[in-house]
Amino acid sequence: MNTTIELKHERSEVELPMSLAPDISKNGHVAALSPDRIFQIGTGFFAAKTVLSAAELGLFTELAKGPLDAETLRTRLGLHPRSARDFFDALVALKLLERQAGKYSNSPEAELFLDRAKPSYVGGLLEMASVRLYGHWTHLTEALRTGAPQNEAQAGDEPFAALYSTPEKLESFLRGMTGITLGSAKAIAAKFPWQQHRTFADVGTAQGAVPVQVALANPHLSGIGYDLPAVKPVFEKYAAANGVADRVRFQPGDFFKERLPSVDVLIMGRILHDWDLEQKKVLVSKAFDALPEGGACIVYEAIIDDARRENAFGLLMSLNMLIETPGGFDFTGEECSGWMAEAGFRKISVEHLAGPDSMVVGIK
Amino acid sequence: MNTTIELKHERSEVELPMSLAPDISKNGHVAALSPDRIFQIGTGFFAAKTVLSAAELGLFTELAKGPLDAETLRTRLGLHPRSARDFFDALVALKLLERQAGKYSNSPEAELFLDRAKPSYVGGLLEMASVRLYGHWTHLTEALRTGAPQNEAQAGDEPFAALYSTPEKLESFLRGMTGITLGSAKAIAAKFPWQQHRTFADVGTAQGAVPVQVALANPHLSGIGYDLPAVKPVFEKYAAANGVADRVRFQPGDFFKERLPSVDVLIMGRILHDWDLEQKKVLVSKAFDALPEGGACIVYEAIIDDARRENAFGLLMSLNMLIETPGGFDFTGEECSGWMAEAGFRKISVEHLAGPDSMVVGIK
Repeated sequence: MNTTIELKHERSEVELPMSLAPDISKNGHVAALSPDRIFQIGTGFFAAKTVLSAAELGLFTELAKGPLDAETLRTRLGLHPRSARDFFDALVALKLLERQAGKYSNSPEAELFLDRAKPSYVGGLLEMASVRLYGHWTHLTEALRTGAPQNEAQAGDEPFAALYSTPEKLESFLRGMTGITLGSAKAIAAKFPWQQHRTFADVGTAQGAVPVQVALANPHLSGIGYDLPAVKPVFEKYAAANGVADRVRFQPGDFFKERLPSVDVLIMGRILHDWDLEQKKVLVSKAFDALPEGGACIVYEAIIDDARRENAFGLLMSLNMLIETPGGFDFTGEECSGWMAEAGFRKISVEHLAGPDSMVVGIK
Repeated sequence: MNTTIELKHERSEVELPMSLAPDISKNGHVAALSPDRIFQIGTGFFAAKTVLSAAELGLFTELAKGPLDAETLRTRLGLHPRSARDFFDALVALKLLERQAGKYSNSPEAELFLDRAKPSYVGGLLEMASVRLYGHWTHLTEALRTGAPQNEAQAGDEPFAALYSTPEKLESFLRGMTGITLGSAKAIAAKFPWQQHRTFADVGTAQGAVPVQVALANPHLSGIGYDLPAVKPVFEKYAAANGVADRVRFQPGDFFKERLPSVDVLIMGRILHDWDLEQKKVLVSKAFDALPEGGACIVYEAIIDDARRENAFGLLMSLNMLIETPGGFDFTGEECSGWMAEAGFRKISVEHLAGPDSMVVGIK
């Protein structure tokens, strides 16, 4: 009964549990068809929303101050007695909490990444998902029927208004972006031939995960983090904390309204998927125009495999763009290579980074 | 990078993918802490809602008639062109669809369990989750703060009104219940000492998965499926289709208002968790009162392990009871044994069935 079915991602495997499986033989192969995997995927929102609500409530932040018994933790979080223990123990079973002698504490990963008081906090993304994204996905069927986004824009509200409402909330959100990008940022810093270049800019840099990692791994480089003006203090604090403030500076700007920075290498990460086909091509062309001869453009995100069969996360992220944007969509390495070639880039290549992410590189 | 972290369930393991993992060593152990598993669980609602919407839209039912290209499938389902291919290919990556020479078809498990035209259809539960349960979980944080359910009852509507609105919808939903129960039904039929008994009744029987399996495996038994009157035609059709209509009959009733059937063995599956502590004890006592000396009561559901550390599904199901009912909750084998002992049962034992399910057995 303890067996899994593998869902292959590009360069990674998703193993799904067969916790309801009655008809599985001992050698791990499916002996008879069972609906268990279908239910497993279909009820995945239970665990997801439980973790999102825990982040929203600041549960891990409270426990980072020290272990607490159920009643004290419940009171601190303002929870009703009815289901507080089930909530806490579900998080124990999901291995995000530990419980010893009746006191709850964070698992090592929760302690490091889900305590708002630590610079390593990545829960801003989960808080955002808890209060808005999860709910917007309720309307996926409607979105598929109409092609229209299902977020605050529908009601005429600004989607990210809540996130950007205070510097603290903005920083929290941008830290979360760093959390999902750090692995790929390190891979870009290591895999791209930086020795041939001296300057770079990261367009839509957020907290600056990529510029910081690129600068840390390549002492000869100096770079720019380019983003909307509100991002500046968060970026500069992060660059300083990582000891690269002397080589990495912030440049405020709107990449549709202004010319991109003049540097040897332009990086665009998790940007293109927000926009429709025409806008994507405009951005790729703007990168081409801003680069010198021999300069490079790096596009990285959860690039879908060309056969559109393996990278489930990239394909699901494209549905997230349906929910969140008027025309955005994720794309394959082949599609991105085509837009780059059309803009004039040559020597275009696609390389895997980390998890579902790959980069597409083109030379001017 | 191809590694997993194991979440142990009672008697089963949930392996979660590390598709975003940058810092995992090749031998499968975590070399450095990474937030990837946190994001993995937290974004599980993407895949979940995608599968739920596919069931709601009848996508698998359409493909069961024959393979279709993307444009034909899109038109048949009434989808907007924008994201239809991403939707279909996400289901390919989740291994619920196949795609050959540009034509989509169902995976073997989707073909068997997600075609509304087949008696093996279990998608009724997914359709229900898509149109109501997923959305109600949006309000988990509020539910945890107030202890109050977050379903249609909040608005004064009858929770299952839509599901029971037509005989077809009711049958579809009850088939889904069979889908998640079949493994445990077979285990109950095989593991309980039925040779010592001649008659049984399944209280809250739904389509009759348990009575049918018990009767099939034990030709000397005759039994009753007990449920609300609307369930009768669905139950009788299922019993007849399985060739046990001569030994398994339907008895309409309301288990709070009426005396339970007089039989040797009373089964209560996925019933007790719907109710508060007092109501649970009333039901256990009613079972005791209805049984003869030497008779047995079998309670089965996603019984939580006594340490409340392993059975994540049972603990999450308890949060689902918070969302769906005024006072329901899931429980451990130890708790259930206590209620049974209090009612007068003896020789109480807990035995694992399939997946997250166990049974608690007591003798009068």
